[in-house]
Amino acid sequence: MSLRIIATGGTFDKQYDPLTGQLVFGDSIIPSALRRARITVPAMFEPLMAIDSLDMQDSHRQQIRAACERSDETQIVIVHGTDTMRETAEMLAHAQLAKTIVLTGAMVPYRIDDSDALFNLGFACAAAALGAAGVYIAMNGRVFPWHAVRKNRDAGVFESC
Amino acid sequence: MSLRIIATGGTFDKQYDPLTGQLVFGDSIIPSALRRARITVPAMFEPLMAIDSLDMQDSHRQQIRAACERSDETQIVIVHGTDTMRETAEMLAHAQLAKTIVLTGAMVPYRIDDSDALFNLGFACAAAALGAAGVYIAMNGRVFPWHAVRKNRDAGVFESC
Amino acid sequence: MSLRIIATGGTFDKQYDPLTGQLVFGDSIIPSALRRARITVPAMFEPLMAIDSLDMQDSHRQQIRAACERSDETQIVIVHGTDTMRETAEMLAHAQLAKTIVLTGAMVPYRIDDSDALFNLGFACAAAALGAAGVYIAMNGRVFPWHAVRKNRDAGVFESC
Amino acid sequence: MSLRIIATGGTFDKQYDPLTGQLVFGDSIIPSALRRARITVPAMFEPLMAIDSLDMQDSHRQQIRAACERSDETQIVIVHGTDTMRETAEMLAHAQLAKTIVLTGAMVPYRIDDSDALFNLGFACAAAALGAAGVYIAMNGRVFPWHAVRKNRDAGVFESC
Repeated sequence: MSLRIIATGGTFDKQYDPLTGQLVFGDSIIPSALRRARITVPAMFEPLMAIDSLDMQDSHRQQIRAACERSDETQIVIVHGTDTMRETAEMLAHAQLAKTIVLTGAMVPYRIDDSDALFNLGFACAAAALGAAGVYIAMNGRVFPWHAVRKNRDAGVFESC
Repeated sequence: MSLRIIATGGTFDKQYDPLTGQLVFGDSIIPSALRRARITVPAMFEPLMAIDSLDMQDSHRQQIRAACERSDETQIVIVHGTDTMRETAEMLAHAQLAKTIVLTGAMVPYRIDDSDALFNLGFACAAAALGAAGVYIAMNGRVFPWHAVRKNRDAGVFESC
Repeated sequence: MSLRIIATGGTFDKQYDPLTGQLVFGDSIIPSALRRARITVPAMFEPLMAIDSLDMQDSHRQQIRAACERSDETQIVIVHGTDTMRETAEMLAHAQLAKTIVLTGAMVPYRIDDSDALFNLGFACAAAALGAAGVYIAMNGRVFPWHAVRKNRDAGVFESC
Repeated sequence: MSLRIIATGGTFDKQYDPLTGQLVFGDSIIPSALRRARITVPAMFEPLMAIDSLDMQDSHRQQIRAACERSDETQIVIVHGTDTMRETAEMLAHAQLAKTIVLTGAMVPYRIDDSDALFNLGFACAAAALGAAGVYIAMNGRVFPWHAVRKNRDAGVFESC
């Protein structure tokens, strides 16, 4: 039982830049979130990229697929922006890897009050540990098969489709 | 797919009383944690008791068993103090309910900086959703079968045994 | 001894909108900050406007001056964006009110980790209580007379000039 | 204009020990609070002791007096437990130092949600910068002369007397 956590950016990992007043990417906060979670399961953290999911191109998705392919761990959590999480999940599903791949993210950045990020990270880690091989999206306290979910942008939630 | 979350107290739910300087129990913070998590899965919250797990007697454990028995939901998360989580899990296992029961808690109260509580709650909710019927302890990023875990009090972690 | 706290917006009061991913203005968080501070001094809170200080026009500054003029309280804290705090201070100084007016703000929004907002609010409240009549900028743990300060935007600090 | 901040312990600086479940003293959090506050005023931090103010003996108070006497800075903030803050203030007043000494503390530890600690620290720093020589207690958004204040333990606030 071991786990790989791949950071790709997204709202989860946005941080405030006091000089510009913008939310930007810096060093991923995921390692500190994992320390806070006091996990003892062996977990590899891989900071693959740090981009908004709206900026994600095919080439980025190929990098994510390659990271999943070369992963020695068969339980993989991918922290990803919510807007195109579904597209990345679909591409990974087509790769047909014999691994349990769970994409998660956050509606509120980890470092902002009342963020859902830490809950989602915990939820996704358990989904990766217990789920069958396949590709899933874990948001809003639910594990969705990749093909049966869409983001409702007006409501800010993922729902079955 | 629906979920019951039963609060029994424990470190997870301890809150600071400014008048006495003590960590005490008040209204459970779990409902606000669930709102923060933005869960959309139907979830019943049941504040059953609010005690330290070191103060938990057989009568309390019978209450917990009764709550699990009468639960319409077959996915149950119990938020519990860590010190006697194992004993409660054992008692529940002997009740042989056809439900997935996951006990979790926290090493640091939810309302204190760097708490593991929200991660653990997310982790336990996914474990309850995906696990087979049985009784589990979900702590430190791991799902332990009830009979194969102990709390290492010196290290402050749960480990296999 | 009584105090008026006037909100005008600025970084201090920015909040995250999960639907747009932007930092925006909503209801001011200052009332909850004051409850948290457990203040017992009589304090009037006046949510005058909620804008970025870069968007502040002369008409906005006239509103701020009018609010200071009509204030029954002679100790006034104005929570303001940092970028044009100096300009508003200068305009207020020219109004020559017999009041102690302290402008403060934040480099990191109140609701983001490691924000300086609560410190600055406390600092400004004491400066308003103890300072002589006049207009001041209170940032970075310092009380600057309005005419002797500038924001160093590269360093993100206020400094004497 | 320079400042000395002396830590003596108290609720402000209490931290949670996951192994014992108690609030205890560790390394003071005041240096990180000052970084968070982005202060640029020269400030010396002196971790003098770390005790509950109910445990404070005459010998401790003599240490505090000695620290104030030898301080090159004439603006001094003392972070202190609230229960005997008044007694320490009285002792310091009798020492008749030509310095502005402001005692502050917190009703909720810095590292617990909704703590008043950061506000109080900011408030006390401004009071030390602007107050006349003398000994003051700064709590609840008010600057009290040392002899005209008591802690109302039932209400958890400082009030004039």
